[in-house]
Amino acid sequence: MISFANDYSEGAHFNILKRLVDSDVEQADGYFHDQFCEEARERIKAAIGSAQGEVDVEFIAGGTQTNMIVIDSTLKNYEGVIAAKTGHIATHEAGAIEHAGHKVIELPHHSGKLSPGEVLQYVTDFYQHEAKDHEVHPGMVYISHPTEFGTLYTKAELKALRSICDQFNLKLFMDGARLGYAFGAASNELSIQDIAELCDVFYIGGTKVGALIGEALVFMRGCKAEHFETLIKQKGALLAKGRIIGVQFAELFKDNLYFEIGKYAVEQAERIKAALVQKGYRLVVDSPTNQQFVVMSNEKYDELSQEFKLTKWEPLGANNSIVRICTSWATKPENVEKLIAAL
Amino acid sequence: MISFANDYSEGAHFNILKRLVDSDVEQADGYFHDQFCEEARERIKAAIGSAQGEVDVEFIAGGTQTNMIVIDSTLKNYEGVIAAKTGHIATHEAGAIEHAGHKVIELPHHSGKLSPGEVLQYVTDFYQHEAKDHEVHPGMVYISHPTEFGTLYTKAELKALRSICDQFNLKLFMDGARLGYAFGAASNELSIQDIAELCDVFYIGGTKVGALIGEALVFMRGCKAEHFETLIKQKGALLAKGRIIGVQFAELFKDNLYFEIGKYAVEQAERIKAALVQKGYRLVVDSPTNQQFVVMSNEKYDELSQEFKLTKWEPLGANNSIVRICTSWATKPENVEKLIAAL
Amino acid sequence: MISFANDYSEGAHFNILKRLVDSDVEQADGYFHDQFCEEARERIKAAIGSAQGEVDVEFIAGGTQTNMIVIDSTLKNYEGVIAAKTGHIATHEAGAIEHAGHKVIELPHHSGKLSPGEVLQYVTDFYQHEAKDHEVHPGMVYISHPTEFGTLYTKAELKALRSICDQFNLKLFMDGARLGYAFGAASNELSIQDIAELCDVFYIGGTKVGALIGEALVFMRGCKAEHFETLIKQKGALLAKGRIIGVQFAELFKDNLYFEIGKYAVEQAERIKAALVQKGYRLVVDSPTNQQFVVMSNEKYDELSQEFKLTKWEPLGANNSIVRICTSWATKPENVEKLIAAL
Amino acid sequence: MISFANDYSEGAHFNILKRLVDSDVEQADGYFHDQFCEEARERIKAAIGSAQGEVDVEFIAGGTQTNMIVIDSTLKNYEGVIAAKTGHIATHEAGAIEHAGHKVIELPHHSGKLSPGEVLQYVTDFYQHEAKDHEVHPGMVYISHPTEFGTLYTKAELKALRSICDQFNLKLFMDGARLGYAFGAASNELSIQDIAELCDVFYIGGTKVGALIGEALVFMRGCKAEHFETLIKQKGALLAKGRIIGVQFAELFKDNLYFEIGKYAVEQAERIKAALVQKGYRLVVDSPTNQQFVVMSNEKYDELSQEFKLTKWEPLGANNSIVRICTSWATKPENVEKLIAAL
Repeated sequence: MISFANDYSEGAHFNILKRLVDSDVEQADGYFHDQFCEEARERIKAAIGSAQGEVDVEFIAGGTQTNMIVIDSTLKNYEGVIAAKTGHIATHEAGAIEHAGHKVIELPHHSGKLSPGEVLQYVTDFYQHEAKDHEVHPGMVYISHPTEFGTLYTKAELKALRSICDQFNLKLFMDGARLGYAFGAASNELSIQDIAELCDVFYIGGTKVGALIGEALVFMRGCKAEHFETLIKQKGALLAKGRIIGVQFAELFKDNLYFEIGKYAVEQAERIKAALVQKGYRLVVDSPTNQQFVVMSNEKYDELSQEFKLTKWEPLGANNSIVRICTSWATKPENVEKLIAAL
Repeated sequence: MISFANDYSEGAHFNILKRLVDSDVEQADGYFHDQFCEEARERIKAAIGSAQGEVDVEFIAGGTQTNMIVIDSTLKNYEGVIAAKTGHIATHEAGAIEHAGHKVIELPHHSGKLSPGEVLQYVTDFYQHEAKDHEVHPGMVYISHPTEFGTLYTKAELKALRSICDQFNLKLFMDGARLGYAFGAASNELSIQDIAELCDVFYIGGTKVGALIGEALVFMRGCKAEHFETLIKQKGALLAKGRIIGVQFAELFKDNLYFEIGKYAVEQAERIKAALVQKGYRLVVDSPTNQQFVVMSNEKYDELSQEFKLTKWEPLGANNSIVRICTSWATKPENVEKLIAAL
Repeated sequence: MISFANDYSEGAHFNILKRLVDSDVEQADGYFHDQFCEEARERIKAAIGSAQGEVDVEFIAGGTQTNMIVIDSTLKNYEGVIAAKTGHIATHEAGAIEHAGHKVIELPHHSGKLSPGEVLQYVTDFYQHEAKDHEVHPGMVYISHPTEFGTLYTKAELKALRSICDQFNLKLFMDGARLGYAFGAASNELSIQDIAELCDVFYIGGTKVGALIGEALVFMRGCKAEHFETLIKQKGALLAKGRIIGVQFAELFKDNLYFEIGKYAVEQAERIKAALVQKGYRLVVDSPTNQQFVVMSNEKYDELSQEFKLTKWEPLGANNSIVRICTSWATKPENVEKLIAAL
Repeated sequence: MISFANDYSEGAHFNILKRLVDSDVEQADGYFHDQFCEEARERIKAAIGSAQGEVDVEFIAGGTQTNMIVIDSTLKNYEGVIAAKTGHIATHEAGAIEHAGHKVIELPHHSGKLSPGEVLQYVTDFYQHEAKDHEVHPGMVYISHPTEFGTLYTKAELKALRSICDQFNLKLFMDGARLGYAFGAASNELSIQDIAELCDVFYIGGTKVGALIGEALVFMRGCKAEHFETLIKQKGALLAKGRIIGVQFAELFKDNLYFEIGKYAVEQAERIKAALVQKGYRLVVDSPTNQQFVVMSNEKYDELSQEFKLTKWEPLGANNSIVRICTSWATKPENVEKLIAAL
């Protein structure tokens, strides 16, 4: 059985594993105060550059945890976070944001993306409500890039969102759980420097881009909450052996590994996408990254499932389904060929 | 200035005030363990009758508090509550439900009402999701009756919701902050016995139907959480002088006062509604209760505002607004005439 | 049966009731934006004077709710509140503070009071802990005055606590659920002006001092959280007919009524206390206010319970109990005499 | 610099690292539904045996997270958890339990342990309180084994706690963050089977006993909350590559590795302890496990700090400190000798 079901079916990239082994008996302080985290922080800061002002880098084990901690530590109690109805925090995080006390204000999605115009309308309307003091105040805009459908924000879109956030005193937060695959996309317009300039906080996903676990959380220009370590601890997210994430990001940001992983995976996805198009499949969205969403008959899905593991995303009428096909750093070219042959 | 802005502009109905005065120096136990609460409980139970099984009546000071306590005490941590996008818990409660840890799962509204068909679709879809274990589980359906737009559920609609709740093990909760005005509506199909039969929990609004404060919360057939008094206390809602609410509901449910208040207020609203229609105003919804939502030019609104207080609900384009006109037990017929003359 | 069980066995003082009746049909805005609340705010501000800087007055229905809202709106997520082990928030609020997310840091009590020296030691130690970033940070000191045992802080003690709070950037919060009885005590050293000078926030209890419901919350020198109305709404504490509390405090602070109620009740308690001492009962603490805690044999308690309702506070060995005897604005002198005769 | 500051200064035991490398490209399902977690579950269940009834094993990244999830998923909203004042949840978890809504009911500690007699007294008293409905109900007893001071519960003590829990319907939860060091102690009386018999839920610490991250959480006899996966997700603790913990516990429970790690570390600690005693140091408690707490002059501490990293636990007067010395699977015998020589 060959899995294209997701981008976390294997362990870590070899460079990471090697460094974990090599550093194993080196003693280090706990709770992310170690030399490996320090190295990783320096490498990430170097990639971002100093032009955008102060940069704070923190490490957290997983994406939902990161979203929850960023949002809860940034928002005031009376504030909520605007997200696309298909945003990860609105759908697949089991209500973690609400569990932390904040409303996810859901707006329509457009291939997974928020429309800046609709965000502007929502916020403008809010401030005209007679009863706005009885409503959740918008305090943040959450976007994922790539989105849950693999699509990407353009530079113009991100600038438009930034401008709205400036006007209404909102924070702009980018969930980059799969950020590497954005960087690897041919049509991507947003460099890590652009993101650092336009967002208040974002994270660089590790778990889904070649690491075992870990997300590198970047706060720009002093946006990190005071006593952030205590807040992380309070959410149960402060790993004693924080080094395990430090080591991984130190490797991911050495010699462009993070960017190469993204590029490689997207290339494999592009091959599959081209084959899908050629064979007449309908793509649900035009995704330029490592996730492809395709309409498939249940019969074909069952047939493929003899040899391949794909993800049945949701039913589409009685006979078809939306199916997700993913690649990663670990996708073998020969398996891509086998899949293409079988499509 | 004459206010039609809401149904809570005056104090309490005279019968209630009189009883508060008469009972003032009578000693009573605290925290809703008094003789007045007991009397109120008995009268409410008598109105409901014994045919629907066990009835528990509790008293809480206000509607948002009641919604928050009912929902948080009923749902499991992994559950959320389905509501219309315009439902009070989704809009005007400042995120109280999310602050208590639960997602409000918003579905479209139809003149303020949930569509049973859309609820069924949502829940059916949920149980077909591959990733449903990563999603908030639907655990309750919240409806308001009358809705925030003054509209009413039909008996068929409520039965349909009940049936879905039975099928998917959901609780059905009716917010009756203005329930008296439903009972007072000519087209109302739902008696208090029907509601007790079809809902798991509902409340009988006092604050907006002639009381100073207070909602009577009714749990049917053992749906009340264990140690409910402790849960109320934990939310800060356990009044030392609970008698103040007991006295009020004892009076409201004596000699049909609650039902008469509703009927009287709706009659006044019907007069205003008839005048609005006759004068060519567009009604936003066809409300059979004490709230009327009407499209009005901002110019007319400003003119009326010299003499009358109405509520500008929300802007409608550049020149018009949706305006709410409310009546209550205290609305004077001569003021209704003055308003009609000025429309 | 005559009750001395607590200070909330009756309704409201006659002046309050009269004003509720007189103002009943006067129209007013909702949610504490009415003329009665405004009048009450002005009277309370006048009592405090302008020497201590900006004064914000808000109204909330009950004490636990007030404690929860003050503490949660003031503390950062990583902060907890220091309280005596016997403090109301540490014992009889069903964990409302923890339910709102904050640790109650319990220190020993001395007749219900915190020792400034022990508070200083605790906070000083905290800042020397290696692992303090993994601990709840002290952010506030909570005191009740009178305490749960009826005792009072001296001016020197309150000044000492203020000084510690200044040194360590803590807020000082006084729970004045029974504040009127402090003002009514012969040995009281703290005027309302002193309290306003030394505390950041305090409340003036109404429910237990002659009102039906309501506490007047006073924030000094800009300590009120932003968008406080939204925060109150989110906790379910924003009454539509906020006027009901406004009317009551407008009356309580007219012609010194609040202070006279306190004085009267304490005088009745002093008569009972003198009789207890004379008859050889042991007082648990030397309370100068309206609550007296006395050791009584269970036999005597049972005998008295034929005619009087007292509160059995807690068992003391097999044969005795600590019993609470309370007076209030409504205590009748002849009933005090009956009790004394029966002791 | 040689560190004895804690038991998490190095990475993972070699067997674990080897298996991580060997299994790296093997594809596996996400979210703990993989073959490695399955293997780990089976090995842990085998170690526990089937005599104690149903066993559920779950994996969570860290100890605070585990404590928070166990406690919040087990307790009702109105319940709190009893713990020693020095318990990890009461001190070094930044208020995570309160942040999740539950009071930590702190009782005195005896060398880090709860006294069964004091627990019994507390619970018995609670049920006699007149006002118990206004108090947090005790719902669980939390113990750590070894405790935060390295001490161990005897079998008699654990049985006594079990008996109290049975009598008052409390859950008994053992925090085994360092459980391996209990098993490795000469005086340990509690086998893993005993623990499984006497506790409702416990966890087997990995992070501090040779793993990179991960705790194996064991629910006995059906004590696991429904939809536990959703609850874990909601707390942000559901790792996509759950395999990383599965692999580690599969190795830790192969060929007794977990028990050998514990034994080895304790042997090294015993050598240090013997030297401390011999050289006249005062031990703060008589710890039979891998943590030793010793009184040391600040001068000596500073001298040792030239070469060794120890943890200054807390100050003891002006000139001395309590210092913690830890060993682990990775402690080198030659470093122990160096430390002993320098003491």
